[in-house]
Amino acid sequence: MSASTVSLAKEEKVQVKGSGLLNSVEDQHGGVIINMEEPMDSLDFASLLEASLSQWKEQGKKGVWIKLPIEHSNLVASAVKVGFRYHHAEPHYLMLVYWIPDTPDTLPANASHRVGIGAFVMNTNREVLVVQESNGRFSGTGIWKLPTGAVNEGEDICTAAIREVKEETGIDTEFVEVLAFRQSHKAFFQKSDLLFLCMLQPHSLNIQRQASEIDAAQWMPIQDYAAQPFVQENELFDFLTKIWLSKLDGKYTGFSSLLTSTSSLKKSYLYFNNNDPSLLLSSKHYQP
Amino acid sequence: MSASTVSLAKEEKVQVKGSGLLNSVEDQHGGVIINMEEPMDSLDFASLLEASLSQWKEQGKKGVWIKLPIEHSNLVASAVKVGFRYHHAEPHYLMLVYWIPDTPDTLPANASHRVGIGAFVMNTNREVLVVQESNGRFSGTGIWKLPTGAVNEGEDICTAAIREVKEETGIDTEFVEVLAFRQSHKAFFQKSDLLFLCMLQPHSLNIQRQASEIDAAQWMPIQDYAAQPFVQENELFDFLTKIWLSKLDGKYTGFSSLLTSTSSLKKSYLYFNNNDPSLLLSSKHYQP
Repeated sequence: MSASTVSLAKEEKVQVKGSGLLNSVEDQHGGVIINMEEPMDSLDFASLLEASLSQWKEQGKKGVWIKLPIEHSNLVASAVKVGFRYHHAEPHYLMLVYWIPDTPDTLPANASHRVGIGAFVMNTNREVLVVQESNGRFSGTGIWKLPTGAVNEGEDICTAAIREVKEETGIDTEFVEVLAFRQSHKAFFQKSDLLFLCMLQPHSLNIQRQASEIDAAQWMPIQDYAAQPFVQENELFDFLTKIWLSKLDGKYTGFSSLLTSTSSLKKSYLYFNNNDPSLLLSSKHYQP
Repeated sequence: MSASTVSLAKEEKVQVKGSGLLNSVEDQHGGVIINMEEPMDSLDFASLLEASLSQWKEQGKKGVWIKLPIEHSNLVASAVKVGFRYHHAEPHYLMLVYWIPDTPDTLPANASHRVGIGAFVMNTNREVLVVQESNGRFSGTGIWKLPTGAVNEGEDICTAAIREVKEETGIDTEFVEVLAFRQSHKAFFQKSDLLFLCMLQPHSLNIQRQASEIDAAQWMPIQDYAAQPFVQENELFDFLTKIWLSKLDGKYTGFSSLLTSTSSLKKSYLYFNNNDPSLLLSSKHYQP
């Protein structure tokens, strides 16, 4: 059973159709959710919404959510007019919210971070897999950089690293470790950013670059990569090459991935230092 | 100079006021941005937008962005009608986007992850700081859990951990390490979640719980925490207690934080394994 099925099963459907109020379901936090699936005239919507809000206020409800598919964008202004604010939007819907109580709201925040990966892939000749990008700020600079990319919606970090390397260079890899990660702020649209630097083991060596996004790709001796002015002058990139050299010398341990499940049997990856061999063996849940 | 100032300085203001087109600025990716700061009639807006779009198509523009403050929600439906989709929303604005070329869009994705922290704080008697929450799924269960919370917009993970512990328990702490992190999917609103488990060193011991959110807080012997059925039956929580015990035995290293700057002099934290003492010393940028 998926997480969304579980979540829906816990909601109690409130039948109010034809009662002069909007259809809604109750959430688990004393609030209500309106899913506007059918089209409606904006004036009809405004009057139903006002009547519904009055009732929810009397009932002591807290947060009121309206999920508006983009087809019903004619209803946005009516909701804003009675006091709703935006909570978040995805390509095909807008979520609006209204907090009824006089206390500060305890509504969950919108997603705040974009997540990306950088991939450190090295062959047995101590050559690192590097690319020149066709777009973006490094385009046309001659700088050789690691394959990087965004983690897709719902994608695991370890999976994203393997996918990006395959897409950009054609190289098959296996995830080894997260060597380090960086959190930065006020990136695109003022959102924050988490970049996970992943070490991957190559399973093939024959490069086939992605024509649309990559101008060139090669295996480059790590000292040549590290000697680029772009790396040397950048505190962060310079330090990361030090980490790779420490790793190659057997002195560095990043975070390995372990698939675990919670009490609701939802699976997720935990990333941790696997250097203490007794750690996994001592866990009664671990199956080698 | 802030990042947003840099970004704005690079944009070229295009003056088209009074020309029957919308005011816009060009972005660095061959697109244009419309900032609707002034109110406008929705029919006037629709006709200006159609005329502007025709011109941008002729000019070979790519992505067109409209940032609509919530006061101008009357214009949302007009933008959707000519083919704009939602990109993201924050409480006070909605960002819409339109991709002109016939190729797949290369627009940046919306933020995909919420980020949270769990705080592992232990005193010299091997007692861990635990709380009982007033709200949420553990409310009223008698379960003692670690302080947890959401990382605020623009906040560093290490700062968020210290703040949450202070808010919930009144204890002053110092950040030590990220011991592990977990990525999960399809959480609230189907967004993904990154939870960073931070170890903190207490600088005070006298607990003052947060009345509004915390029913009880105490220092609890770690074996009592670990013996709770809630921990034992949960693969993830059980494994995390194993990590803490390994850490207390001196066999585990998490990721320390290091403030670095990039070539644009923007500061951000890198989290890495600081076990190899030669690593920081070998970096020419590091100042102890």
